[in-house]
Amino acid sequence: MDIKLTTGKTFPISEEESLLQALKRQGVYLVASCGGKGICGKCRVRILEGKSRITSTGKLVPQEIKAGISLACQTFPEEDIFIDIPKESKLIIGDKIALSKSGNLSELLKSLGAEISPIVRRITLNLPPPTIQDNISDLERLRKSLEERDITGIRFNHEFVSSLSDTLRDAGWKITLGYTVGHDIVYISPDDVEKGRYGLAVDIGTTTVVVYLVNLIDGQLIDVGSTYNSQMRYGDDVITRIIYAAESGGLGELRDSVLSDINDLLNPLLERNNIRREDIESAVVAGNTTMTHIFWGLNPAYIREEPYIPTVNFFPRWRAETSGIKINSKAPIYSLPCVASYVGGDIVAGVLASKMHRSNEIALFMDIGTNGEIVVGNSDWLVTAACSAGPCFEGSGIRHGMRATEGAVESVNIDPQTFEPTLGVIGDTKAMGICGSGLIDAIAEMFLKGIIDRKGKFVKGLKTGRIKDGFEGPEFLFSRNESREVVLTEVDIENILRSKAAMYAGVSLLLKEVGLGLDAIAKVYIAGGFGNCIDIDKAIILGMLPDLPRERFFFLGNASITGAYLCLLSKDLRQEAGIIASKMTYIELSISRGFMDEYMSALFLPHTHLRLFPTVQKLLSTQ
Amino acid sequence: MDIKLTTGKTFPISEEESLLQALKRQGVYLVASCGGKGICGKCRVRILEGKSRITSTGKLVPQEIKAGISLACQTFPEEDIFIDIPKESKLIIGDKIALSKSGNLSELLKSLGAEISPIVRRITLNLPPPTIQDNISDLERLRKSLEERDITGIRFNHEFVSSLSDTLRDAGWKITLGYTVGHDIVYISPDDVEKGRYGLAVDIGTTTVVVYLVNLIDGQLIDVGSTYNSQMRYGDDVITRIIYAAESGGLGELRDSVLSDINDLLNPLLERNNIRREDIESAVVAGNTTMTHIFWGLNPAYIREEPYIPTVNFFPRWRAETSGIKINSKAPIYSLPCVASYVGGDIVAGVLASKMHRSNEIALFMDIGTNGEIVVGNSDWLVTAACSAGPCFEGSGIRHGMRATEGAVESVNIDPQTFEPTLGVIGDTKAMGICGSGLIDAIAEMFLKGIIDRKGKFVKGLKTGRIKDGFEGPEFLFSRNESREVVLTEVDIENILRSKAAMYAGVSLLLKEVGLGLDAIAKVYIAGGFGNCIDIDKAIILGMLPDLPRERFFFLGNASITGAYLCLLSKDLRQEAGIIASKMTYIELSISRGFMDEYMSALFLPHTHLRLFPTVQKLLSTQ
Repeated sequence: MDIKLTTGKTFPISEEESLLQALKRQGVYLVASCGGKGICGKCRVRILEGKSRITSTGKLVPQEIKAGISLACQTFPEEDIFIDIPKESKLIIGDKIALSKSGNLSELLKSLGAEISPIVRRITLNLPPPTIQDNISDLERLRKSLEERDITGIRFNHEFVSSLSDTLRDAGWKITLGYTVGHDIVYISPDDVEKGRYGLAVDIGTTTVVVYLVNLIDGQLIDVGSTYNSQMRYGDDVITRIIYAAESGGLGELRDSVLSDINDLLNPLLERNNIRREDIESAVVAGNTTMTHIFWGLNPAYIREEPYIPTVNFFPRWRAETSGIKINSKAPIYSLPCVASYVGGDIVAGVLASKMHRSNEIALFMDIGTNGEIVVGNSDWLVTAACSAGPCFEGSGIRHGMRATEGAVESVNIDPQTFEPTLGVIGDTKAMGICGSGLIDAIAEMFLKGIIDRKGKFVKGLKTGRIKDGFEGPEFLFSRNESREVVLTEVDIENILRSKAAMYAGVSLLLKEVGLGLDAIAKVYIAGGFGNCIDIDKAIILGMLPDLPRERFFFLGNASITGAYLCLLSKDLRQEAGIIASKMTYIELSISRGFMDEYMSALFLPHTHLRLFPTVQKLLSTQ
Repeated sequence: MDIKLTTGKTFPISEEESLLQALKRQGVYLVASCGGKGICGKCRVRILEGKSRITSTGKLVPQEIKAGISLACQTFPEEDIFIDIPKESKLIIGDKIALSKSGNLSELLKSLGAEISPIVRRITLNLPPPTIQDNISDLERLRKSLEERDITGIRFNHEFVSSLSDTLRDAGWKITLGYTVGHDIVYISPDDVEKGRYGLAVDIGTTTVVVYLVNLIDGQLIDVGSTYNSQMRYGDDVITRIIYAAESGGLGELRDSVLSDINDLLNPLLERNNIRREDIESAVVAGNTTMTHIFWGLNPAYIREEPYIPTVNFFPRWRAETSGIKINSKAPIYSLPCVASYVGGDIVAGVLASKMHRSNEIALFMDIGTNGEIVVGNSDWLVTAACSAGPCFEGSGIRHGMRATEGAVESVNIDPQTFEPTLGVIGDTKAMGICGSGLIDAIAEMFLKGIIDRKGKFVKGLKTGRIKDGFEGPEFLFSRNESREVVLTEVDIENILRSKAAMYAGVSLLLKEVGLGLDAIAKVYIAGGFGNCIDIDKAIILGMLPDLPRERFFFLGNASITGAYLCLLSKDLRQEAGIIASKMTYIELSISRGFMDEYMSALFLPHTHLRLFPTVQKLLSTQ
């Protein structure tokens, strides 16, 4: 039995296989936030020809079903089948979030006063060739020469010693040696061979994976690669990943997924820049606690079970060959240290990149990504919490939510009289869905223009045809074209309010814990690729960000990869990252008595206590 | 085409395969000192039925050929073949040399004042279980607990961390940890599990491999295993092995051979004593420099090329999994350090076992094995040399030479009137050949009784039918029975004189180098399994040992395995072994100007200068 795509591709499929599985097997990845359980409704395909058994239609509305739309994960062909995969169903690489770049990295490095000091140290040795009088062994000759340069205690691995005799003789006893502070040999090469020094900074996000190829001599960012974390196939958030990891073989599958992502990103970088794999001598990875555990193949199960204990926070510097990253096999991999089960190395990296840990002023750091982590503090102290905000700003759990790719509504203005919306769509094309910044805009506008009330419910009796009864209750129609409607439902709005409430309540609670008010915050750092696209004013109207003067807000972009880049290049900054992680006090919100109150108060637009949002209060009063 | 043995075994053979190869493939090992080149003449078989192509008859005499004897390595069957393998052709395990035991080892350990301190340290930890307040990661919890016991800097390997979370929880947070001074984790186990502590001492001789299974708690020797080093298939001495290693794949083959020997010895030891493989937590290997290199898979080529440089003398403590010994995969393997290309860890182990390095008195240490190594010195200094004595005392290069197994002539007395010999044969059976001690006896007797002159040549005109013209010139007939003659030829005698001359010249030269005379030597330690069987008086008559008062001679047996045992049990003694190896000054005899003179003088019986052998002089004058 065959499956044929409108692109012309044809390949075999069996009766027991869902379309999703068969497509995945062929390297055609669909968005499947729920991991193929028929819940998220994202893996839509249009069946053009052929009979199939459909086990569930999930969130599909009747007119979609009529139009031949089916969920790939719930569709099992009964004969040759011909399908079309709509754009919005495809996992596409290269969206705004994944590619969000940091600023001038070398400038940042300089501003931190850090000298370039990579993880691998390099030394050139000119050994005296042996004679019958000076007949110590090759390894002792090397040891002696290192001792003369005050380098002792090196651990010589077996592979290195196995090739030592020939290497020394081939090199005419003049060699370059790479070794780590932990005293492992990374490489040996003839001195007269030009050997580049390259490193990788890797950000393993729950959703995206970003790789920086860096010249370790001058700190130059040579090239960048990014892709979706293909663990997405198994679920959108860390919890579904942890659950999947516990299934037989699940951990290995998840680990292999992200490793393939990294290695697949690496290949074109090497080729494009004409760099040899073995010349990549070190790597730094930053990820949340679960992502880092999975990357190293460590069981993340206990992260999720009370009392929420990771296996490791400070990861040993294992070698590339242990990790599976295909660079110099002995290259040390530095993992940004984690703080707790839900505050990981990505946040430590972000704080490092923000420099808030060096300042007397109190700052608030917010990472608005798949999860939501916040840090408050300064050079003396740091407190942190994870908000379980959920990935709704990345499109998950929102009827027409999508990531910031072509076709996503990213900005919304609504006419106060006619309630007609004006949409900004990425790629200036037809709207296919709404991305995170679009959601913020949409809700802020709907609230300001009186379409929804402070509880997020549609105001009854408005003169507009845009509000209609949908599949899940009332919804607002943003656009409609031949292929698709884009709506925002009351359920969607509820989900977003929950997310923003979780984040705001987290901030409130952290401040309460340290006995400070909002006004104590001198700076707010917004991290996460998504952060870059936010309209601060709208996010304050939503009540997601605290109502502070706009000049206190700073966008860091992907601060996790920035921090990884810094650690790749500087010993001092690696040390600082360690200090940051040790210093941070983690507050477990789920058991904090005050959190639920804060959360309930924040479920309103912008908040139960309007006085906390004076600029919004003012805006509303002038409307 | 089949090959059938008189034992009843039948197995296939192809035309291109020599009988030697086919037998080897089936696990039937023949003595083949030359590695199957048709030179040594040891792999004799008797062809009872079947035609075959014989490419060379080597050293076989016409009557042997007539009797159907053929060299297995030179015989290629042309049809089904039926053969008998004479006893003396078989490699037999369990000869006197291989099984030669050391004395009371625990006594020796005690006499060295060494406390039991194995390579792996053990600690029991009772960790506080995590709570939501005390939520550091599992690894940090362990680190903290170790720090409280002043153990820092442990390197946690990936495998260990991978299983840590489950192990800690399964063990109820009470664990036993094994780790090395080098800060590697070896094992973790629940505290309430009774865990034995065992170690292996391994002597890798050029000819034999001996394994001691030791209880690391009380130092008790639990069991012993020994076998031939199956590298013997590729040649008798280290030089042929080095050459074979250089051939494609040769190194791997040699390494696999000795590893199989060790692992094959280990299996019955574990079974007999009901010990789990993973409870063997450490091992010590002692071998000469070539054997140690091959054991670790290191190319020994440069050992043989001027200026004779080993890759390593002081071996890193790699893990069992790296070595291939099938014990706890993370068990550290300590290799006795080597001194130079031809003075290895076996000699360092021997010196340690002799205690000569602790005494003010000057001692001479002689290892009479496949090679011949000597050490002179005391607690202040040590000099050493290798004599290239060759393996003729182990039967190699001697027409009817054999190892000390059943059927070997081990002692000889000759009637001064009739010249009729009285033979002591191992196993009180028919003589099949002469072993090392028999050779010493035979030549000393023949010399004392006037059958050979001081040059080792047969005296002409003696009234005896025992001297006859053989295949290679004159020879002395020791015994004859239906199956076989046992003779000693003039060529054999020449070979032995060369061996003993090399050893004696080595001793003379070392003493000259340090400006001492023979009389300075207060003690002579004879090591090597073979040493135990030597008649000191006869060896002095031969001029192999210096003519010193008999009470100065001490037999150490297999001092290499004794030294390995000591290092397995004591940190101080491992340190001492390192000091011994560092302290020893190696004299390269082959380039020493005085050596050739000394050697030429020592080619006589007992020596050119009879005055050096006063007791022999006296004996001769009274005859």
